[in-house]
Amino acid sequence: MTEEESFEVTPWDVEGNVDYQKLIEKFGTKRINPSLKKRFFKDAGEENLYMKRDFVFSHRDLEKVLDDYENGEGFFLYTGVGPSGPMHIGHIIAFQMTQWIQEKFDVNVYIQFPDDEKFWSRDVDYDDIEKFAEDNLKDIAAVGFDPDKTFVFKNTEYIGHMYKAASKVAEKINNSVASAVFGFDSSTNIGLNFYPALQLLPTFFEDKRCLIPAGIDQDPYWRIQRDIAPKFGYKKAAQVHNKFVPALTGPEGKMSSSKPKTAVMLSDSPEEAKDKILQEAYSGGKQSKEEHREKGADLSVDVAYQWLYNLFMQDDERVEEIGRKYENGEMLTGEIKQILGEKLGEFLKEHQRRKEEKGDELVEKMMYEGNLAKKMWDKKIQL
Amino acid sequence: MTEEESFEVTPWDVEGNVDYQKLIEKFGTKRINPSLKKRFFKDAGEENLYMKRDFVFSHRDLEKVLDDYENGEGFFLYTGVGPSGPMHIGHIIAFQMTQWIQEKFDVNVYIQFPDDEKFWSRDVDYDDIEKFAEDNLKDIAAVGFDPDKTFVFKNTEYIGHMYKAASKVAEKINNSVASAVFGFDSSTNIGLNFYPALQLLPTFFEDKRCLIPAGIDQDPYWRIQRDIAPKFGYKKAAQVHNKFVPALTGPEGKMSSSKPKTAVMLSDSPEEAKDKILQEAYSGGKQSKEEHREKGADLSVDVAYQWLYNLFMQDDERVEEIGRKYENGEMLTGEIKQILGEKLGEFLKEHQRRKEEKGDELVEKMMYEGNLAKKMWDKKIQL
Repeated sequence: MTEEESFEVTPWDVEGNVDYQKLIEKFGTKRINPSLKKRFFKDAGEENLYMKRDFVFSHRDLEKVLDDYENGEGFFLYTGVGPSGPMHIGHIIAFQMTQWIQEKFDVNVYIQFPDDEKFWSRDVDYDDIEKFAEDNLKDIAAVGFDPDKTFVFKNTEYIGHMYKAASKVAEKINNSVASAVFGFDSSTNIGLNFYPALQLLPTFFEDKRCLIPAGIDQDPYWRIQRDIAPKFGYKKAAQVHNKFVPALTGPEGKMSSSKPKTAVMLSDSPEEAKDKILQEAYSGGKQSKEEHREKGADLSVDVAYQWLYNLFMQDDERVEEIGRKYENGEMLTGEIKQILGEKLGEFLKEHQRRKEEKGDELVEKMMYEGNLAKKMWDKKIQL
Repeated sequence: MTEEESFEVTPWDVEGNVDYQKLIEKFGTKRINPSLKKRFFKDAGEENLYMKRDFVFSHRDLEKVLDDYENGEGFFLYTGVGPSGPMHIGHIIAFQMTQWIQEKFDVNVYIQFPDDEKFWSRDVDYDDIEKFAEDNLKDIAAVGFDPDKTFVFKNTEYIGHMYKAASKVAEKINNSVASAVFGFDSSTNIGLNFYPALQLLPTFFEDKRCLIPAGIDQDPYWRIQRDIAPKFGYKKAAQVHNKFVPALTGPEGKMSSSKPKTAVMLSDSPEEAKDKILQEAYSGGKQSKEEHREKGADLSVDVAYQWLYNLFMQDDERVEEIGRKYENGEMLTGEIKQILGEKLGEFLKEHQRRKEEKGDELVEKMMYEGNLAKKMWDKKIQL
């Protein structure tokens, strides 16, 4: 096995200790460089934590999104999540990024719930998918999207408005492309094989450029979009790619709801979350206190530090100071975990409060009663 | 090339001089034998022309349909047509068979217009498909279905009511099966590859046995239905298979709207139709009058006689007498064509009158306003 093959990233499977520079090369995307970052923050009127820390690290055509924004043409956002279980910290990050961009640039957001794709790709029935979706929707609502500028839809519910347009997308994708890009084979069912048409369609919901915040592992879908968009007279979709949130148990692969030790769930109580961090978070510190004081921690594999740096601590000077002290042995693993535990506890407490108090009402608005939702239910998608 | 390979029948392509006994063996269906025929006519209360003449010649589980009918469980009918052009005589036969069964057994009929499949399988856009569908629908209405017990639907319109159930069908069909049964390959688009799920779904519209009158070339679809129906707790679909209406120009393959000389269109005036018969109908008679008087006609390749025998002349004695006299040279090709021309002219005149006078109103009822249509628009298909 060559070094290039030692990790595998397809839309259905992310494993191994991911080398992000290799992913940029593999997928042919671009690193977000300092000048683009600066321009993005200037247009937004504020710095973004994830991009500042290079957690959002790669893109396609972000500069064109900013061109469109600056010259008044505007753009819109599209993201989604397959309801296959309760959500964890890793699931919510792309939504937070999306919500942040919506707020700063005042644009519409479309969020797809591909319940059909989950049914086709996993051994799970629609009743379970429905149950997960109900809970996931409230988590997403708690992120704080503008309920009049956000449309959330389940594919099996909204299909009547999408199908004819999706059939035109499907006509442009043959089995060979689907197989090469998604790894579909003879054992793949004809539903999953059809699904790329539906995942692409929302990039044509408005006649503006679509910006998709997503994991870099989703890139193959959007490469097909970029091939076919010009055939319909639409703009190629732009993307910003986030890194994977490392599993609590170590920097190998992603968190998984089905492996409870690897993840902090959005439903974990602040105390449970703190306990998980203390007990499970993979440490880059040394085994003994003496060795640690002498040699310090390896920040690159320390999950608590990585979460703090990438996701939870806005203050640049503070997080760098912590990093420096941890790296040279002044600070101990327990202290880092303590700091993260506090931050994470605050986040969860606030998230759960919003979900509980406003979740149902916001979901109703984003799906059916808000301004954008009403507009979407009143029309059929044209292509 | 072996003899078995000298004709090819897939759902998209019927060519060559078809050997129906070989098709029965190839597809593993059953010939409709005299006792089954008798039982069918007895339950119907009347003889059916097409079955009497063995134009409807093959079946699957027709005896189970009659069991269900006789013991009061009932059954329902399903058929369809892809709107890809104006309709000809060959298109309307399966609808007439379906209407006859509806009338005699008093059952519901579902008629699918797979506009999506036509879009995926042919180089034609939705505007053209829509135009053809509008005309085709009125032709079907003119056949005389009970507008309160018939539901006609375009897939792109009714999809919102079918999609979730269709996704469950799709999950049971993998690319390998789709490829083996339909000849799909790497160049097939992912839409057409998905379509079998939608063509199968209406066989589950009622929790009774579904009976499908169709060309035997459509059998592969229904074999998949028969594999998966038990997994959903439904009955396997039954079928009655008609032969292909031979092209005017000869008994090789089917009529085609895109080859005007091969077909009598439902929109041809009675005079045009008579002229076509006289000029184009492939004759089994001999070249010279003298030779014909001596040797007689070959009925098996004589299109005018075949049409008369299979489709237009109810009177057994009369049609057999004509056959005998034509075969022994007493009657000439021109006389046979004259008799067919009259029958065909009457049929077209009456068809066109009904289409003109009642077409719009009946289409509206069968699609939206009739009792069955209203019921179907009020629910989502469950599976």
